[in-house]
Amino acid sequence: MLFTPSPLLIDTLRQRRKKLSYLIDFPALLWSGCAVSRNFPANIYSFRASSHFLYFAGFPLENAAIRLDQGRLELFMDDPPEGSTLWHGEMPQRNQIAEFIGADAHYSLKELSNYLQDAATIVVQDPITASEQRQLLNCPLVSASEPKGIDLELTNAIITLRLIHDEVALNELRQAAEVSVEAHKAGIKATKTAQLEAQIRAAMEGVIISHNMTCSYNSIVTVQGEVLHNNHYHHPLKTGDLLLADVGAETEMGWAADITRTWPVSGTFSSTQRDIYQVVLKAHDICIDSIRPGIEYEDIHRMAATVIAEGLVELGILNGSPEDLVEQDAHALFFPHGIGHLLGLDVHDMEDLGDLAGYEPGRVRSQRFGWCFLRLNRPLQPGMLVTIEPGFYQVPAILNNSENREKYQKQVNWERLEQFADVRGIRIEDDILVTEKGTEILTKNLPTSIEEIEALIQQ
Amino acid sequence: MLFTPSPLLIDTLRQRRKKLSYLIDFPALLWSGCAVSRNFPANIYSFRASSHFLYFAGFPLENAAIRLDQGRLELFMDDPPEGSTLWHGEMPQRNQIAEFIGADAHYSLKELSNYLQDAATIVVQDPITASEQRQLLNCPLVSASEPKGIDLELTNAIITLRLIHDEVALNELRQAAEVSVEAHKAGIKATKTAQLEAQIRAAMEGVIISHNMTCSYNSIVTVQGEVLHNNHYHHPLKTGDLLLADVGAETEMGWAADITRTWPVSGTFSSTQRDIYQVVLKAHDICIDSIRPGIEYEDIHRMAATVIAEGLVELGILNGSPEDLVEQDAHALFFPHGIGHLLGLDVHDMEDLGDLAGYEPGRVRSQRFGWCFLRLNRPLQPGMLVTIEPGFYQVPAILNNSENREKYQKQVNWERLEQFADVRGIRIEDDILVTEKGTEILTKNLPTSIEEIEALIQQ
Repeated sequence: MLFTPSPLLIDTLRQRRKKLSYLIDFPALLWSGCAVSRNFPANIYSFRASSHFLYFAGFPLENAAIRLDQGRLELFMDDPPEGSTLWHGEMPQRNQIAEFIGADAHYSLKELSNYLQDAATIVVQDPITASEQRQLLNCPLVSASEPKGIDLELTNAIITLRLIHDEVALNELRQAAEVSVEAHKAGIKATKTAQLEAQIRAAMEGVIISHNMTCSYNSIVTVQGEVLHNNHYHHPLKTGDLLLADVGAETEMGWAADITRTWPVSGTFSSTQRDIYQVVLKAHDICIDSIRPGIEYEDIHRMAATVIAEGLVELGILNGSPEDLVEQDAHALFFPHGIGHLLGLDVHDMEDLGDLAGYEPGRVRSQRFGWCFLRLNRPLQPGMLVTIEPGFYQVPAILNNSENREKYQKQVNWERLEQFADVRGIRIEDDILVTEKGTEILTKNLPTSIEEIEALIQQ
Repeated sequence: MLFTPSPLLIDTLRQRRKKLSYLIDFPALLWSGCAVSRNFPANIYSFRASSHFLYFAGFPLENAAIRLDQGRLELFMDDPPEGSTLWHGEMPQRNQIAEFIGADAHYSLKELSNYLQDAATIVVQDPITASEQRQLLNCPLVSASEPKGIDLELTNAIITLRLIHDEVALNELRQAAEVSVEAHKAGIKATKTAQLEAQIRAAMEGVIISHNMTCSYNSIVTVQGEVLHNNHYHHPLKTGDLLLADVGAETEMGWAADITRTWPVSGTFSSTQRDIYQVVLKAHDICIDSIRPGIEYEDIHRMAATVIAEGLVELGILNGSPEDLVEQDAHALFFPHGIGHLLGLDVHDMEDLGDLAGYEPGRVRSQRFGWCFLRLNRPLQPGMLVTIEPGFYQVPAILNNSENREKYQKQVNWERLEQFADVRGIRIEDDILVTEKGTEILTKNLPTSIEEIEALIQQ
C-alpha cells in the first residue's frame, strides 16, 4: 500500500462527505474492519476494508473508524504498536494518515467511545468488528442488509452517493478494467500451451498480481461453464471444450472490474459453438447499445432474454414467438441468471445491503424462474456502472428436471438441442458506464467477436 | 477440489484416529469452520478448513464436524441445499464423502447436539464457527492457545501426532515443496525483465496457481528484505538491490511449504552482498548438516547465531569472539528472529496453539533479544519437518536505536558496517525433514549457491 497524499483525492473525499451531509442530519460512524485469520492468528487473509469506509476514507486502513458529521471527517485509529517496525517496517503515523485523507481531527480508538452519541452505522462483514460495533453502539444491529431507524437512513444516503461514480472512482474503475482486459488477453493467449484450467487461471491472475492488484472475486476459469459459480480449476483442457473465464481485478483502493469471455480450447469454435456464441453476442451487443439514462435495467434484461429466445428459435432449439417464450420463462431454461449488476467498490456493488442498493425503493425481487436472480432493478442514470453479461448454459439440474421437461415439452425441441451438446456454457460480460450521451464501455479493449478471439488464441 | 476415494488415505486417516484413541479416553469433536466473507456475504475468501480437522478428515469440507471416539469417525454435515447445483454444480452427497474419508457413520449437523457429551474440542479460527462451538459445548472456550481440562488433553494428544509426519503427509509436503521450488525458479528467472516487485511475485504465485495450489501465507517479495513481514510489492527493482522472496505453496489438502531465497536484481551480487550472503549460507548449511534425531532445535539456533557472528567478525563488522558475541546477543542486531519453525498443515505448524506445539512441555520462551522470536524449542525427532532460515538484516529500528548503539559500542564496527549499505536483508530458507539417518531436504532442488543463482537469473 502506497500512501501518497493527493489533493484530488482529498478534495473528492471532502465532496463525498459534503454530499452526505446534505442527506442526513446525524453523525455517521464507519468502521474499516480487521484482518481475518486463516489457519492461525498471524496467518491472515489479505485485508479488505469495508467498502463504505473506503468510499469516505480513501485508503484501506486496518482497524480504523471514521466519524462523518456535517461535512467533517474525524479519524479514529491507533498508531502502530512499538516493535512493529521490525516486522512491518516504518508505517505512517496516525497524524500523517489524517493528513493524507484530509481528516479534520484524529484520535485513538479508545476515544471512539466519546463520539458515539446519536451516530448511525452500517455493520461490517468481519464478525469481530461487527461485534465491537454492536457492543459500542449498544444496539442489536442484525446485518447490513436489514438496517433500522437512522442506520437505514444512513444506508439509503450512502446508496444515493455510491450509485453515481465521481471522477476519482471512475479513474480507479478504468484502471481495474484495463488490467482485467490484459488478464483476459493473457488467458486467451495461454490456451495454446495450457493443459489445465489452473494454468489459464495462473496466466490471468498473474497479470492482476503483476499490476499490484487483487482479484475482486474468486475467479471462474472452467470448461464447465454451466456451473455458474464454479471455483474448481482441476479439469484438463480438451479439444472441443469451451473455456469460460470470469475474472476481474480490484485496485489497491478497492475498486473492481468484472469480465467474462468464453473461447474454444482448440482455437476454433465448432459450428454449434459458433451458432450459440453469436446468439449470446447479439444479446450482449443489443443490451449495451440500448443503455442510456432513464432506461429500466429490467427492460435490458428482458431484451437479452428476448434476443436469446429469438436466436434459439432461429436455431430450432425453441419453438414459438420470442416474446411468448420470454413470457413463459422458457429463455430461463438456458439463461437462468440476471443480465448483470452494479459495479463499484464491490463487484456486486453494495450487495452487503441486500437489495437496498440494487432495487429501486418499493420494488422487490420477482419469484419467477429466470427473474429471481436479477440483481439490479432501477432506471439507469449517468454515472452508474453496470455489467452486461448474457449467457447460454446447459445446466443438467434445469434441463433434466422432469417438471421442466413436462412444462416446456412444446417450447423446446429436445432432439435438436442434443446437437448442441458441445455448448455447455457461454457468457460474455463487459463493464458499462452510463453517461449523459449513452455509454462508455470500460472493457472495450477486449474483443468479443469470434474472429478476433480466434486470432488471439492462434497468435 | 477433486474428491477421489483413496484406500491409502482412508487407511492413514484410520491410523491417525487409532493413534489418537491410545492417547485420550474421551471423544473429540473437531469443526472444519466456514468460509469468511470479504466485502459482501457471497464474496468470500477462499475457504481454508481448520488444520486439526484436515488432519483427521483428509478433505477440506466446509461447515462440517467430525467426532472421533475410540478410533471411530463420525461425520456431521448437511447435504448441499436444493438449488445449489445451478451455482455450484453437482456436489458429492454426505454419504459419498463419508465413504471417501472412511467414516463409520454420518449425520446431519442438527444431529450434532446429540453427540456432544464429554467431548473435547479445539477452537477454530473463524469467529462464527468458534462462537457456535462455545454455544454448543456450553463452555467458555477462550482460544486454541489456552485450552483447559480435556481440551488441553486433546490438544496435547493432537500435538503428539501432528509433530511426526506420516507417509501421506510427507507425500503432500513433498508436492508443496516441489511446486514452491518451481515458483522460486520462475521468480529468479523473471528478474531479467521485471521492473517491479509485483511482477516477480506474479511469476512465482503464477506457478503455484497453475498447479492448483494456494499460497500457504502472504508472499514476501521485496527489495526491503529488512522488513521481516513485508507484504508490499510496489517498489521498482533497481540495479544494486537485493530481492528477498519468501513464498510457499499449499496443497489442496492443506499441506504447506516455505522457502526463501535472496538474489541480486542486476543478476550479479556485489562484493559486499556476496560477502554477507556467504556468511548466511554458511550458517544455513551448517545448521542443516547438524540436524539429526535428538539434537535440540535451540542448539541449531545458537549454531546459526555463532556462525553469523563469526562471519561478521571475519568481515570486520563485529569485534570479539563469536561465542561471547552470541552470549551478549550481539548477533541479534543482524539476525533478530529464530532459525525456523515447525512446518506441516500450517506454515508455522500448530501456531494456533500458541507455544504448546513449538515448545517442549515445561519450556517457555526466552525474553532475550534475538531469542524471544524462536518459535521452536524441542529436541528433534524423525518425522518432524522444520524450516532452517538464517538471515542478515539491517533494520533501522534496531541499528539506529540509541540504546543498542550504546550497548554494542565496542562490539560493532559501525564505520565498517556502512560499507555494507547495499545489504539490507538476506535470508535463505529450506524445509528439512528429520529422518532416522539425519535429514531429507524437501527443497533441495532449488539452488542456494551464488554461482547457481546468478546462472539462473542470467539464463
